[in-house]
Amino acid sequence: VSFAAPIQPGAHIAPSTLFKPLDTFPRRHIGPRDNDLPVMLKTVGVASIDELVTKTIPAGIRVEQAPAVGEPLAEAELLSELRKMAAKNKVFKSYIGLGYADTITPPVILRNIMENPGWYTQYTPYQAEISQGRLESLINFQTMVSDLTGLPVSNASLLDEGTAAGEAMLIAFTIHNRRRKTFLVDTATNPQTIACVRSRAEPFGINVVVSDASGWERELEESGQDIMGVMVQYPAADGRVPDYERLAAQARSRKSIVVAATDLLALAVLRPPGEWGADIALGNAQRFGVPLGYGGPHAAFFAVRDEHKRRMPGRLVGASKDTHGKVAYRLALQTREQHIRREKATSNICTAQALLANMAAMYAVYHGPQGIKDIALRVHHLTSVLAEGLTQLGYTITNRDSFFDTLTVRLDFPSSELVAFAEENRINLRIDEKNTIGVTLDETVTKQDLQHLVRVFALGSVQRHMLVSDSSVPSVDTLAAARFATAERSFNFAPKLARTSAYLSHPVFNSYHSETEMLRYIMHLQSKDLSLADAMIPLGSCTMKLNATTEMIPVTWPEFNSLHPFVPQHQALGYKTLFEELEYSLAKITGFDAISLQPNSGAQGEYAGLRVIRAYHESRGDVKRNVCLIPVSAHGTNPASAAMCGMDVVVVKCDAAGSLDAEDLRVKAAQYKDRLAAIMITYPSTYGVFEDGVREVCDLVHSYGGQVYMDGANMNAQVGLCTPGDIGADVCHLNLHKTFTIPHGGGGPGMGPIGVKAHLAPFLPGHPLTKVGGQAPIGPISAAPWGSASILPISWAYIRMMGDVGLRKSTEYAILNANYMAKRLEPYYKILFRNENGLCAHEFIIDARPFSASAGIEAVDIAKRLHDYSFHSPTMSWPVGNTLMIEPTESEPRSELDRFCDAMIAIRQEITDIETGKQPRENNVLTNAPHTQEVLLSENWDRPYTREQAAYPLPNLRKRKFWPTVSRVDDAYGDRNLFCTCPPLELDE
Amino acid sequence: VSFAAPIQPGAHIAPSTLFKPLDTFPRRHIGPRDNDLPVMLKTVGVASIDELVTKTIPAGIRVEQAPAVGEPLAEAELLSELRKMAAKNKVFKSYIGLGYADTITPPVILRNIMENPGWYTQYTPYQAEISQGRLESLINFQTMVSDLTGLPVSNASLLDEGTAAGEAMLIAFTIHNRRRKTFLVDTATNPQTIACVRSRAEPFGINVVVSDASGWERELEESGQDIMGVMVQYPAADGRVPDYERLAAQARSRKSIVVAATDLLALAVLRPPGEWGADIALGNAQRFGVPLGYGGPHAAFFAVRDEHKRRMPGRLVGASKDTHGKVAYRLALQTREQHIRREKATSNICTAQALLANMAAMYAVYHGPQGIKDIALRVHHLTSVLAEGLTQLGYTITNRDSFFDTLTVRLDFPSSELVAFAEENRINLRIDEKNTIGVTLDETVTKQDLQHLVRVFALGSVQRHMLVSDSSVPSVDTLAAARFATAERSFNFAPKLARTSAYLSHPVFNSYHSETEMLRYIMHLQSKDLSLADAMIPLGSCTMKLNATTEMIPVTWPEFNSLHPFVPQHQALGYKTLFEELEYSLAKITGFDAISLQPNSGAQGEYAGLRVIRAYHESRGDVKRNVCLIPVSAHGTNPASAAMCGMDVVVVKCDAAGSLDAEDLRVKAAQYKDRLAAIMITYPSTYGVFEDGVREVCDLVHSYGGQVYMDGANMNAQVGLCTPGDIGADVCHLNLHKTFTIPHGGGGPGMGPIGVKAHLAPFLPGHPLTKVGGQAPIGPISAAPWGSASILPISWAYIRMMGDVGLRKSTEYAILNANYMAKRLEPYYKILFRNENGLCAHEFIIDARPFSASAGIEAVDIAKRLHDYSFHSPTMSWPVGNTLMIEPTESEPRSELDRFCDAMIAIRQEITDIETGKQPRENNVLTNAPHTQEVLLSENWDRPYTREQAAYPLPNLRKRKFWPTVSRVDDAYGDRNLFCTCPPLELDE
Ligand SMILES: Cc1ncc(COP(=O)(O)O)c(C=O)c1O
Ligand SMILES: Cc1ncc(COP(=O)(O)O)c(C=O)c1O
Ligand SMILES: O=C([O-])O
Repeated sequence: VSFAAPIQPGAHIAPSTLFKPLDTFPRRHIGPRDNDLPVMLKTVGVASIDELVTKTIPAGIRVEQAPAVGEPLAEAELLSELRKMAAKNKVFKSYIGLGYADTITPPVILRNIMENPGWYTQYTPYQAEISQGRLESLINFQTMVSDLTGLPVSNASLLDEGTAAGEAMLIAFTIHNRRRKTFLVDTATNPQTIACVRSRAEPFGINVVVSDASGWERELEESGQDIMGVMVQYPAADGRVPDYERLAAQARSRKSIVVAATDLLALAVLRPPGEWGADIALGNAQRFGVPLGYGGPHAAFFAVRDEHKRRMPGRLVGASKDTHGKVAYRLALQTREQHIRREKATSNICTAQALLANMAAMYAVYHGPQGIKDIALRVHHLTSVLAEGLTQLGYTITNRDSFFDTLTVRLDFPSSELVAFAEENRINLRIDEKNTIGVTLDETVTKQDLQHLVRVFALGSVQRHMLVSDSSVPSVDTLAAARFATAERSFNFAPKLARTSAYLSHPVFNSYHSETEMLRYIMHLQSKDLSLADAMIPLGSCTMKLNATTEMIPVTWPEFNSLHPFVPQHQALGYKTLFEELEYSLAKITGFDAISLQPNSGAQGEYAGLRVIRAYHESRGDVKRNVCLIPVSAHGTNPASAAMCGMDVVVVKCDAAGSLDAEDLRVKAAQYKDRLAAIMITYPSTYGVFEDGVREVCDLVHSYGGQVYMDGANMNAQVGLCTPGDIGADVCHLNLHKTFTIPHGGGGPGMGPIGVKAHLAPFLPGHPLTKVGGQAPIGPISAAPWGSASILPISWAYIRMMGDVGLRKSTEYAILNANYMAKRLEPYYKILFRNENGLCAHEFIIDARPFSASAGIEAVDIAKRLHDYSFHSPTMSWPVGNTLMIEPTESEPRSELDRFCDAMIAIRQEITDIETGKQPRENNVLTNAPHTQEVLLSENWDRPYTREQAAYPLPNLRKRKFWPTVSRVDDAYGDRNLFCTCPPLELDE
Repeated sequence: VSFAAPIQPGAHIAPSTLFKPLDTFPRRHIGPRDNDLPVMLKTVGVASIDELVTKTIPAGIRVEQAPAVGEPLAEAELLSELRKMAAKNKVFKSYIGLGYADTITPPVILRNIMENPGWYTQYTPYQAEISQGRLESLINFQTMVSDLTGLPVSNASLLDEGTAAGEAMLIAFTIHNRRRKTFLVDTATNPQTIACVRSRAEPFGINVVVSDASGWERELEESGQDIMGVMVQYPAADGRVPDYERLAAQARSRKSIVVAATDLLALAVLRPPGEWGADIALGNAQRFGVPLGYGGPHAAFFAVRDEHKRRMPGRLVGASKDTHGKVAYRLALQTREQHIRREKATSNICTAQALLANMAAMYAVYHGPQGIKDIALRVHHLTSVLAEGLTQLGYTITNRDSFFDTLTVRLDFPSSELVAFAEENRINLRIDEKNTIGVTLDETVTKQDLQHLVRVFALGSVQRHMLVSDSSVPSVDTLAAARFATAERSFNFAPKLARTSAYLSHPVFNSYHSETEMLRYIMHLQSKDLSLADAMIPLGSCTMKLNATTEMIPVTWPEFNSLHPFVPQHQALGYKTLFEELEYSLAKITGFDAISLQPNSGAQGEYAGLRVIRAYHESRGDVKRNVCLIPVSAHGTNPASAAMCGMDVVVVKCDAAGSLDAEDLRVKAAQYKDRLAAIMITYPSTYGVFEDGVREVCDLVHSYGGQVYMDGANMNAQVGLCTPGDIGADVCHLNLHKTFTIPHGGGGPGMGPIGVKAHLAPFLPGHPLTKVGGQAPIGPISAAPWGSASILPISWAYIRMMGDVGLRKSTEYAILNANYMAKRLEPYYKILFRNENGLCAHEFIIDARPFSASAGIEAVDIAKRLHDYSFHSPTMSWPVGNTLMIEPTESEPRSELDRFCDAMIAIRQEITDIETGKQPRENNVLTNAPHTQEVLLSENWDRPYTREQAAYPLPNLRKRKFWPTVSRVDDAYGDRNLFCTCPPLELDE
């Protein structure tokens, strides 16, 4: 693609083109070149892109205008514009706490993981054999969480602490078969967590009682029967470190589930929840080296007692073995997930926070147990020096003898006065109430910072100003000397709560403490993972397009990445502009009237959207509307989200062509007309086709008073060509990590903002601490007001650099690339579900079912064999069993499309060889795939094919080959012998 | 190593430790842990580190005090300190030109090469089989240079344009057997280039005549016999694009060598020097995507006619084939290099600018021929719009009809007035003379920039201020319209000088134009190169230690990396402080009185130091002193540098123990006592031993009036334990890319500052454009006043983070690591040259000579077999033939030392198997090493060992293995069939 018209010497030069920068982005983002176009169009059988689009998208829904997001900025322009915007964010020192603490990202992790496409471009590690690096790192994360919380099974991250708390409540709910209706939450829990829990509770009619845990003894006694669970924050949000052992025992004796929201750093010195009786521990792993990012992305953790492991939400990595008995990691117990459970799920989590979990795990790997403990103790001791200072200054600390890193201070003057003075000094404190404030310290606090803080407290009220001069501010040296005059006072919590058990004792946490070792460990793991830096990842429905460097650069600028989510909004004016502009563009692109940037994954978007629909119906008194129609082809998150909104899911059939069965829809819509809340459709469909008649579907549902929810996962086929708003959708989520180039991070982060029509705007989600959302907002969907704010510059940058025309072109090429591949493959494979012109949208499905009988080959065999060809496999067996769904995206160059097609064609020949009996059905290159170096180099080669056939089925592989590091992983073995922390080294000898 | 005392709960807490940050650096930099120490000391046979040092370093030279460079800063502290320093550098828009132009580093190159340890940590690609990635990239560089200059053979970079010009002159000098004495240089050549050429000429008595090339016809006619060569700048420094064809023909007819200093971007539209008759083209490749960096590092290029290729300085990459006939790259014609030629060399270049050459090459790969041409044309056309504006404003442009990107403007008021006004507007112009100024445009210039520039010219004198108001400043749109009203005027140089020939037509420049493709290409090449991110690189004398992320981060901050080298010094106050502090620390560390930061490699340091010594002697009238004693064991750069200073090299023998032969020294010193200029010694010696009696050597030389030059390549064994200044050296260079953690970049950049005693300080090198150096400075050694300024933050950061104690510890561990390995290996190999206590310094030599007879095995076979064990080989056959010199550095952890020793021990067994006849002498794992995947997987395996023995001689290799990508490379074939540009693709099928 060449968008820059070359200036020809001697030719007439148009002054208007002269000044245009040359570092334009669309030609960098889009793969095929201008000179690829003729042959690609010819292969597809159309004369022009325009003809292709006309024949792909039903008439009537195609828009004429590219979205009005403006002229494209070149890459350098973009960065300079963004620098200006960033400069409007003020990076003050924040002592706000509430689950977010500043942290030092070890530079070796910052550069080689967070800023490294070899770590951030992958999808969730579904293909274990080419993902052993991340899987090992994620099992490190699980081990770290498990060790620190004292609970045996941890997952590999959730979206944030607030929603993790909601998930915990729902486990308690389902354990009691939804019969118990009350969930107790201690008052001293982070306010955003309480709000998220309440919000999650609402659709299920759960009664969330927020009260002081000290009174629960009575409560449990009196109504224990109805109490599904209790949740405390440990240490408490006000800083106290209560002893919950008795409470936990009492709750558990009533079969109430005990949930501890907690802090990994504190647990390095505090008795862990698992040891005092918690069933579930959860929290935010952010302070383990993950930047604050104005709220995210961070990895929430979630650990449970063994008995609850099958109820645990989210991805769980487990150790299993491969066909040669070698230890191999893979995602375990996948049947727990919404993909399988669908409307029976109480969790819809899909994209989580893998990249951030990896960073947190690496932080623990780098620091080791002693390093983590040193950090915890330093934070703790500095807090006690501060306590000494405040006491000397005459302040009342409400938790003077019970804290880890947080003090609550009662003032005899309005807290706003102190907070304002602090802000003048570039310091943010937390206002708890009118006359109390909170201070939470973190590992970044220097001696000078602490001195500044003491000074602010010394001079922090008008009155004090007059009494105390700068020279009489106590020095922190003096305070420390006073505080540590005696040895006994080194801890500030009940001695019984001091941690005695070991943690992080596995060798992995004790081997890589120099930077050289750490770097090599990171690089070694990276080398086991196939990423977009190696090859195409043609995962249907996942849109693995380029995550461009220019888009990524701002994410690690301090101005975007060092803001606490609850700083005053006037400190974040750069973000404000960015949000407004991004909302504006997304609204233009989707045809909606309002956007919420809060949901931090696609599934959260679905949930938010359906909740908004419910709120809308309720606002009109339409309280009975709780049926959600969902096509059988829908992604598992759809029914799960609907169920989480308390909706009844009614499944709509699809016809043989893959379209919604119009008759079935008509019947069911009519049948439920009084209760019809919504229909959820994916467009183009999950089968990769722009269905005809989608407008009619919307009209039908509307005619019965229902709303239309569009799953925007396939938005990459729509941008600039048609808009959900026009088509008839009332809400749609956008996976910014698909269409809008946020990298998938190996399983997260993501962002799933929703767009809505005006009538739904009043209900967009709010937040307890920050004014966001509609006039009559539903509760928060995420812990932070704008979800994972710090990755929004990525999508903003993408849109600004593509501009109207670029965005549309991008979609056109996504469609072209898919159809080009489909046409190349169609002589060899059955392509399912294309439209009447024989065209797919931006992805297509290959049928592997016939090979089952003809050759004993399943889709999974093809998928694994593709690893031998240095490819990630397409999406496997979704949305149709035993098929492969291929989505190349616009970013793949023709050479890579061809390389993939050549591989698939060669594999087809390999299948033929089985069909024709040239190769045995049980022992061939496909069933034995993937082939590792080790297997191929073994002396005893007794296979009916050569090593070279296994390793180099195509000549180019001799020049460039990505190697799987384990043979086919045995999932069943792993699930039977579940092992979810780092395995002892002996195992792997 | 744990330097942070762990805070124990319940223990007494010393307030002074409490506030210390925990992200301390020494324990990250140094490999072994505290708990490794006992076993390591035991292996070495000493009770403590102190005992080790006492037994290693001769009594009397060891200092008691660690260098007084201050308390260490923690990593985050360091970065925040450095941010403050950086903020004092002002990033203005510079139109200064003179060989430096701002550029857009494509972000994909910035992040994945310049900021990626997988690209920047390697040494020069001496081990071709594990360096094919960089070698391919460097051959791309050569191809690009060759294409653009129109000359067939290009090297893989020199240090800077100034020294490249010096090298060109010396080629001309030697071509005429040093008989012709005159070198003509055109007046309109960059002033720093002229100064460098003059400086290089001086020791040889070459007469550099700077005059207007238009008068050379006469000159050549009259004294052509004596004119070795002529040099012009093309385009000229004042902007003109002269036609030099006639001149070149005339010069060549007189056998004068024609040298063109030129500009790669201009050559995209101008007739290249190779086509109008130049023998040599050289210049700075900086504007191809390499940041300005206040002067460096950048890659200079150098291309010659075929007949001169064997005289070309620097590294040359060539295509050859491996033992299986596969195309393989490697360094070609190494016999040209100073390693071999020693005192017969006229160039001493060793470390060059590989990393920057790679960046420039990738810039061409990413943009391709059309992209480069677009950039060139845009710059050219914008310059012509500016010309239009200046003309309309009434200015006189001296080169109105002859320019590419530079205008010279004659003012009717003092140029200082305009320049000052420009600076107020954050714009730097070039003052050429009192009433002319220069303006050079570059690819970063935006429309707005151009408008600002026009405005500055419009309002730039007091008088104009009064006449012209802001509103009457002509708009660039109007100017452009006027300028391009007719098509004919699109070029501003003689039509005959327009380029007609193609360039960059090899597929590599036409295949990777989307970011995805580019990223994969970069990553693919990276995967072929073993770097410090993969394994230890135990290259003796090269000090491949950690290049820490925190040290690297500031290098790409705009405040360090976007300053033109000739901005007014008050715009670079951050740099000023950094230079002062670094000079102070280096002086403390070395025991010298003054430092020059100008030399940008070790070899340049040698040259600078010897020149300073000569200047000193001359200042005392001691003009006869031109003998330089150099031990036979010296690095090739030593005699080469001495020769370049016009010195006569007298070689001093070494005794069997590897020490200087005291008797020989005495005799020769006495023999040359009247002519004795200096001795060059390396300490500890190049044999890796702290020689006894080094003080006596110094005293002896001093007693005859000679000076002592110390080669500081082995400074990593001295820092904090002894100092060159104390020992008796008068000058010493420091390879900052060894001891002071600047990464080697795969063959550069580096920095080689020198320290001198007070009596030599007056002679430290100066610079024509910036006040640096001594009172009676020698001419410049580098084109930029502070050499490669932008990498100096690396060494500064290292010193600041290590502090006194850390630096000393670092040295102690470097010595410990080496001795630990030597002791582990000594039962298996003969270790050459240790001191009387059986101890080495920081490196040691293993003798491979015995295996020659016993097994037919040479050092090279061991080196290549080490690749199969996933190691880079040690330094091969230097300083003693058929040996391996191992230097682990302090950064390697014990596990890696052990892994290496295990590999060497296993290899020893493999040799035994040959010695005992178990394996044949001609066909065994060593002679056939290294083994590639492809070879091992071939069906026809007829070797007397198994595939597994070849690939996995130790069990750990099954888990983690780095693969060589070609088999043993055939050097002789490559030199016979020299091919130094990208080979046609067919070759590699
Ligand atoms: C069609 C569809 N809907 C919803 C989702 C869920 O999105 P997320 O993973 O961001 O939660 C996906 C994820 O791949 C999807 O493909
Ligand atoms: C002993 C010795 N002297 C001098 C040099 C030359 O230094 P540079 O490569 O920086 O020019 C080297 C390079 O390795 C060396 O080992
Ligand atoms: O490059 C070296 O000679 O070490």
